[in-house]
This record gives sequence, C-alpha cells and structure tokens, in this order.
Amino acid sequence: MTGLRTDLYELRMAASYLRRDMTDRATFSLFARRLPHRRGFLVSAGLDEALTFLETFAFDEDDLAYLRDVVGFDTPTLAALSVLRFTGDVWAVPEGRVVFADEPLLEVTAPIAEAQLVETGLLNLVTFQTTVASKAARCRLAAGGAQLVDFAFRRTHGVEAGAGVARASAIAGFAATSHVEAARRYGLRPSGTMAHSYVEAFPDERAAFRAFAADFPVNPIFLVDTYDTPAGVRAAVDVITELGLSGPLGVRLDSGDLAALARESRAILDAAGLTQVQIVASGSLDEDVIAALVAAGAPIDAYGVGTRMGVSYDAPSLDSAYKLVAYGDRPVLKLSPGKATLPGAKQVFRDRTGAGGDVVGLREEPPPPGHEPLLVPVMRGGRRLDGADPAAAVRAARERFDADLAWLPEPARRLAEPEPLAATVSPGLAALHERVAAHVRTAGTY
Amino acid sequence: MTGLRTDLYELRMAASYLRRDMTDRATFSLFARRLPHRRGFLVSAGLDEALTFLETFAFDEDDLAYLRDVVGFDTPTLAALSVLRFTGDVWAVPEGRVVFADEPLLEVTAPIAEAQLVETGLLNLVTFQTTVASKAARCRLAAGGAQLVDFAFRRTHGVEAGAGVARASAIAGFAATSHVEAARRYGLRPSGTMAHSYVEAFPDERAAFRAFAADFPVNPIFLVDTYDTPAGVRAAVDVITELGLSGPLGVRLDSGDLAALARESRAILDAAGLTQVQIVASGSLDEDVIAALVAAGAPIDAYGVGTRMGVSYDAPSLDSAYKLVAYGDRPVLKLSPGKATLPGAKQVFRDRTGAGGDVVGLREEPPPPGHEPLLVPVMRGGRRLDGADPAAAVRAARERFDADLAWLPEPARRLAEPEPLAATVSPGLAALHERVAAHVRTAGTY
Repeated sequence: MTGLRTDLYELRMAASYLRRDMTDRATFSLFARRLPHRRGFLVSAGLDEALTFLETFAFDEDDLAYLRDVVGFDTPTLAALSVLRFTGDVWAVPEGRVVFADEPLLEVTAPIAEAQLVETGLLNLVTFQTTVASKAARCRLAAGGAQLVDFAFRRTHGVEAGAGVARASAIAGFAATSHVEAARRYGLRPSGTMAHSYVEAFPDERAAFRAFAADFPVNPIFLVDTYDTPAGVRAAVDVITELGLSGPLGVRLDSGDLAALARESRAILDAAGLTQVQIVASGSLDEDVIAALVAAGAPIDAYGVGTRMGVSYDAPSLDSAYKLVAYGDRPVLKLSPGKATLPGAKQVFRDRTGAGGDVVGLREEPPPPGHEPLLVPVMRGGRRLDGADPAAAVRAARERFDADLAWLPEPARRLAEPEPLAATVSPGLAALHERVAAHVRTAGTY
Repeated sequence: MTGLRTDLYELRMAASYLRRDMTDRATFSLFARRLPHRRGFLVSAGLDEALTFLETFAFDEDDLAYLRDVVGFDTPTLAALSVLRFTGDVWAVPEGRVVFADEPLLEVTAPIAEAQLVETGLLNLVTFQTTVASKAARCRLAAGGAQLVDFAFRRTHGVEAGAGVARASAIAGFAATSHVEAARRYGLRPSGTMAHSYVEAFPDERAAFRAFAADFPVNPIFLVDTYDTPAGVRAAVDVITELGLSGPLGVRLDSGDLAALARESRAILDAAGLTQVQIVASGSLDEDVIAALVAAGAPIDAYGVGTRMGVSYDAPSLDSAYKLVAYGDRPVLKLSPGKATLPGAKQVFRDRTGAGGDVVGLREEPPPPGHEPLLVPVMRGGRRLDGADPAAAVRAARERFDADLAWLPEPARRLAEPEPLAATVSPGLAALHERVAAHVRTAGTY
C-alpha cells in the first residue's frame, strides 16, 4: 500500500512531527458523530481491510521521489519516511457489531506521525464499509425470510467499491453476490443468470430459455420481462415442461408492477404444477420497496438489490471523525461548535439486556454491572492479532451481526422513524471531560 | 484486469454464446435513462479508465480455476475464455463533454460474448465518474470565481474511489486535490496543510502555527477554528507578523457560521494589513452551501469540498443502462415498461448555437445543418486510438468541459430547478424504431 494513499495535510503534519522529534504516542478515536437520516443503528464494518492497510503502509522509492520533486520534502524528512511503518496498537469494535453515534469504532495509539498518516485511509475504509453494511442491514430487515442477492457492482463507485459492497452486504446477511471477483476474494456465493440482451440475441424467448437451460441445467433462472411478463412466464413454463427440468428453478421479474406481476406469475406457475419454481425480483429495489412488496404479500422468494443498496442511496456517507483524544500523557479535546470531542482512550459498554443504552467510558474503567465491552485489541506493535483471512473475517462478522440483530431493540430496528439507542457518558469520562474542557476554557488552549 | 471483474450472469451468457458459436457482432449502447434529481446536465467521464479496462480484460490461470471449480464451467468453455480478449470497436462521447438523458455516452461493437462480458465494468466506470463529475460541476457553477479543492478522499467509497473522485472533480474544474496518490497519477496539484490534531499536539495555537510556518514556509494555511475562530485568526496574524511571512498565505475555517466568521476573519486580517492572506472554507460544503455563501458576499477565496461532492450526496448514482441495440444484421430493442430502448448504432448531434436541443440519430445519418456529432471512434479492434496518458486525458477533458460550460444554456446550468435540454429523435431513428417495434408487437418477439 503506497504511503501516498493519504491526504497531503497528513504528510505535512507527519513531516513536521518527525522534523521536531515529536514522537510521543497519540491516541486517535474513530467514530460517527451522528447517524445518517433514517438510520436506527450502524453495522460496524471495514476493520479487516483497515488492518491490512496499517500493516502494509510504507513509502517506496517512487513515493519518496514524488515527495521530493513535487511536494518539496527535504532529505532528512524523506529519510525518516523511508523507514516509517505503522508500529502502533489498535482497539476496535469487531466487524458486524451494531453500534451507534459517538461510540468509537476504532482507536489507534502510535507515535503521532504514524497515527496521523493513516487517518485518511482508516476513515475511508471504515466509513465506506459501515455505510453500506448499515444500508444492507435495512434491506435484510425489510425482506423477512426472503433471500437477498447483491446486484450492485455495475453502479458502485468504481470496481474496487463493488467488491467492498459485496463484502459489506454479506456481513449484513445477503446470501450471494453477482460480483465474481468479490465472491472469490471473500468466499461468497456467486449468483446470476441472464440479461435481456441474452433473450434478444435469440429468435424468441423460448429459444433463449431452451439454450440457457441446456447450458446451465443447475438452477436456471429465466428472465421473463423482456417483451411481456406473463407471456415470458408461459414461455418459461413451456421450456421447463418440455425439457423436464427439476431441482431449483426460477423466473426473474425486473420491471413493471412487481407485486401484481409476482402474483400473476405465481398463478401461471402453480396452474402448470410448477410450485417449486421460485420468483426473483429486481430493479431499483431498496428497503422501502421490499417492505412494501412484503406487506402486499407479493409471492417473491428472493430479491436482487443493486444500486440503492450499493451506494446507500438515501445516505451515501456517514459523518465520521478521527480525532486526537490523547497525546503523550495528556488527554485532549476539540471545542469547535458542532464538532466537539471527548478526551481520552475509550471503551463502549453494552447492556446485553437491551433495556439500557450503551455507556461510553474510559478504556480502563471497569464495565458497569451487566455490561460487556465492545472494543477489543486487534493490533499490537503494528501486527494484527488475528490471522489475515478475508473469507473468515466476513463469516465471523456475519455471525456477530446475526447475534446483534436478535438483540437490537425494536425502536432502533424499525425502518420508518427509527430511534437509535442513545449512549450515555460514564462518570469517569464525564469527570475527565469537565476537567480538560475547564482547562481549555481558562487557558484558551490546552 | 482479471476477467472476474464482472457479474456472474455476464460470464454465463458469454459461455452460452461461445458454446453455441454465436459470434455475430453485437452493438451495445451505454446511456443514462434519465437525469438524477436536480441535475440539468451530465459531464461525461470515465472513458479513459474504461478503455484501459477493455484493453486489459483477460482470464488468468487462477480465474479459470475458479470458474472450473466453483462456477462449474466445462473444459471447452474454459479454453475459449483463456484466449478471449476484447477485440471490438468503441465510439464514445469524449470526457468532459456535457450530455443529457437518452444520449449514448459509449457504444461497443464486438462479438457478442466479448461485448457482454465487459458490460459490468463499463457501466461501473462510466456511471461513477460521470456521477461525480456532474456533481462537482454544480459546485463549480456555485463557486463563481473562487477556487475549489477536492477534500473527499476520507469518505469516498473506498480508496480507489478517492482517486476517481479527484480525477472527476478535476475534469469539472477543481483546482487541486488533497489526495496525494491521485495527484501523482493524474498530474493534479496536491493541496493540504494541517488538521485540528496538529494544533492540539502543541502547547497552544501560536506554537503550532509557528512550527508549521517554519517547516512549510511556502503558502502555509493556518487552521483557525480548533478552539475559537477569531482568537485563532489573531494568533495567525501574530505569527505571520512575527515571522515576517510573505507570499501566498491563508487561514482555514472549518466549522461554525462560515459567512459571519469569514467576514470577521477578513476584518481582523485587513486591520492588521494582511489583505493578501486568503480565506479558505471547508466543512460539509456542497453547491447549495457554497452558493449561499457567495450570495451572502462572504469573503471566501477557496472552498475545500469533500464528502458531499465525493459521494454525490443528493444523487449518488445514475440510472445508466447498457443495452443491446443491434445483433448481427438486425437492430433490436426492449419494450419493458419504463425501460424501453431505441434500436441501432447511434450518434448524438449537437446544435452549437444552443438554440435547439440535441438530436439522437443513427450513426450513419448525416448531421442536421449546424450540428456537430458528439460520439467519435476511440477504439478499433480492441486497441485504443489515443495513447494511454492519464494526466493528458484529464487535461483534455477539463478543456472540453470549459468549452461546453460556456455553451450550456441557462435553464440547464442553473442550480435550482434546472431544465435539461431534451434530445429529440431523428427521423431516421424514429422510422427504424417504429419498424422494429411494430415487428416485435406483431411477432411477440423480434
């Protein structure tokens, strides 16, 4: 990972720290300042890639040449950067856990130059994955028992984002992805059958369905809306019957009034004795459309969810922050209006009964009775404490989300006007904040 | 570029075509079905990376092993894929041109398996870059003469998306980016100074500003809102005066009432005789906030625009499509409700006077009088016709956008309730569509 994957100001600050021998350890806290519109909770995600980013962060010869020739760094700074690696410690909320505003997702403690340089990359990876996992979780809540498949790749923000979306949606419980490279990388189930162009490339729908079933006899799904949906379903029925297809089979509806067409399709299939043929719906779906289809009793077995999940259309980012909370032996804070921060390394304590909200406290505080800590050590001295296994990380995260989803209180989990759990501040953290803030107000600075 | 960077259904369709010796050339057209909410125009972008994607698309041994072991492809299909490259022709609207709904941005003609396999990648790259360039263009329209800097990297959809955003915003006229790797890759100006954590790492603001100015005497910009903005500006004034700094200098406001604080800061700076010190504003900016600041006469010289531009917050994607319009010697179309397509390879003809809207016609039609064609050949036989030069591509695209922005009629360029130019259909295309649609309606299929 090139060390230039950062903002210029991180490099300038780091250079200044190195030049001044400011090597004290700093702690930065990464958290969401508030939840986006219509979100009752967030699903923590992005940690696995963030740890890889930290482990591989380094400047090669080309990077250093650019910093010398274009940015104007001097020789001692370049020498310092050439041997710089991330050597710090990281505590984090494991991926898949449900979190709320003002709760640290990740805390970095490292010599300040290192901790500063990785800000942009950490914010980027955690914000993106958490944003998409949280949106995908809403689709899961909407879908009830129906399966969800990630169809987002064609409209994610670049090809790498497509893989990130496949991963984040898998953590939230999506059963498969259309994205083949992502399926390989993260051990997901690849899924997909045919597009309208396939149907159009044959003389008629029956010819297309016949060819496809011959080539892919295992679980073919026929796209039936190229010309006229009921006629397409009847063509699928004819081909299924004619070829004596059995096992898992499906038809896909991609346009029109999905509830009405699903009912009509179900009726045609059932009348032909093809009760086992599933109905897959796709086309501009999101949690609201899915919830409406479920509420209408539409007989849909699986949903292909694309763009609106993959870009988190109604809330495509998160007001995340990476803030210095301690430097050397002093806790620090920021008083900027609307962007104030709490000082010190922290811990989030969760009431497993769900009756009380989370408590944000100091890392060394004991948990309040009945509470469990969410942040755990994940990296020490620049080395991750788990083995790097992308597929295992997704599986473990999905299990954590399953458990947290079962725990999540109703006001936070409902789709419309959700009410997030409000975290409270522990007495220890409140006292520290008051002490530091009073000092800043009196001294005009820390 | 691994050939697995596609949706599974593309691979299945391609495998079916290869197996059936369906090697006729197909033409696919990539276009936006409609403009997003509050967009009067789109800025075409993403072509350069799309051409690289096409030139490098191939399956390596690992890809083929995955398709064999997990997807279940047979030996003849794997053999065919192992030698498959994109050998087609591409016409496209050059990057930076202003375009509207229903106008092809790119048309691919290739043996159908190749043209199908690259659908996902092409849609992804063009949709993402066009979405962001179009959002960034609105920021430019809002900013008037003020400079714009891309600050989005920390909240783009992954680290690669950060580079894409730097590129797309540069095409739309942004003057610099915080993203150092992107600046190197695309020949952009890297920009950035300090964060709040830097100020907090020193005993007080003056110490931080003094250190920063000593380390970066060329164009230092002091972040003044860590504790109290007017006090921060006075600290900057003291340090500038004390060190006798000259040349370009600035202060950055990142929170609070930016219009009021900019006026107050300007007054403090001017009273100290520092009229040359510029004011940079940042913090949750988008075209609406910028336009309001400009309308309020806020004395702001440059805007750092991040998340809201970088994820195109109010419209994070585009209803783009990649549709088969010809296969072999027959033009094809789709009649799905709301997703109907026009048949045949096309051209977009632009009235340079701006008095009339664009005309979408057939590729071989002559331009209407006074109109210029927008699509040009960019790839032939799988080889791009320009040299691949990422920096030159951005520069040329930015020049095209400058020219098109000067041309763009007011109803389409205004920020609030813009009215996009409506493209009309040429008589030749209308006649072809009528003929093909009538045939589909009569025959129930093409």
